[in-house]
Amino acid sequence: MNTLEAIYTRRSIRKLSKETIAPKILNELLKAAMCAPSAHNEQPWQFVVIDDKALLAQIPHIHPHCPMATMVSLGVLVAGDLRLEKSHGFWVQGCAAATQNLLLAAHEKGLGAVWTGIFPRETIIRAFQKLLSLPKEVIPFSFVPMGQPLESPPFSNRFLEERIHFNRWNTPPSLNSHF
Amino acid sequence: MNTLEAIYTRRSIRKLSKETIAPKILNELLKAAMCAPSAHNEQPWQFVVIDDKALLAQIPHIHPHCPMATMVSLGVLVAGDLRLEKSHGFWVQGCAAATQNLLLAAHEKGLGAVWTGIFPRETIIRAFQKLLSLPKEVIPFSFVPMGQPLESPPFSNRFLEERIHFNRWNTPPSLNSHF
Repeated sequence: MNTLEAIYTRRSIRKLSKETIAPKILNELLKAAMCAPSAHNEQPWQFVVIDDKALLAQIPHIHPHCPMATMVSLGVLVAGDLRLEKSHGFWVQGCAAATQNLLLAAHEKGLGAVWTGIFPRETIIRAFQKLLSLPKEVIPFSFVPMGQPLESPPFSNRFLEERIHFNRWNTPPSLNSHF
Repeated sequence: MNTLEAIYTRRSIRKLSKETIAPKILNELLKAAMCAPSAHNEQPWQFVVIDDKALLAQIPHIHPHCPMATMVSLGVLVAGDLRLEKSHGFWVQGCAAATQNLLLAAHEKGLGAVWTGIFPRETIIRAFQKLLSLPKEVIPFSFVPMGQPLESPPFSNRFLEERIHFNRWNTPPSLNSHF
């Protein structure tokens, strides 16, 4: 798939099957996540692959927006490791870029996936830390359940010309020749 | 380019040419940015395309890590608009995913680009707000200078097996059969 096609057609998929994901594919997805840019190349991330059924079954109880965890055979927790920070306060952006790479790579591989946000919700952060025995410096950031897609959301045009400005705020698009 | 190839081969390009970027290409890149996921689909972003030479010349004076602004004919400021927030505190992640889409789309199109971080540095945020006459609720997040790449950084393997854990912290990779 062409990169732009993948970016344009990727959607959050919340109906997912329990088919397992081959280790080779999972490896490619995690490599994609680790290719994200980060401040001073600090690579502030850690990943916890969750495929234990008992753990997956716990997730809807600690994350109100994640009933999908029980539909799948596997999900990836993306976490920021504060011990890896070089540029204070930027780890969130690195973990977000890694999560986005993970989603795009899953879409390229024909998998469905959805970004469920954890950070900055303290209660959910603490619950995941406890569930997975994470060190206190490892901050759960997002959880991405993935599997074969069981839905195909319709195309949605998210291009909003009014969000684009030229050189200063609120230059009306009609007054410039860019588009 | 295949999506995984784009993700794996994208690098921060800091040596860039002044060739202009066609409006059609710019449009495709901004559409890619706007296809990023966001909390509750809030789409918290605004974009300021900067191609005014006098403005570009100011940027290295307000951003210590952005001498590239004077090398290029165009850069995109990604900003978060707090008035668009639906899920408090998540706008940073949406803007990061949008920035990553922008970088991948530029790479797909053969352009070089680099993510220079602004948020959460207050001084740089205020300086960009002043330079571009932004409303106080519009928070500069990242600035992405782009142009034809004048460098080709060597391949760098960023896959770190020790960052991958299975079901709990610090399961040694040798004790699982996933890889």
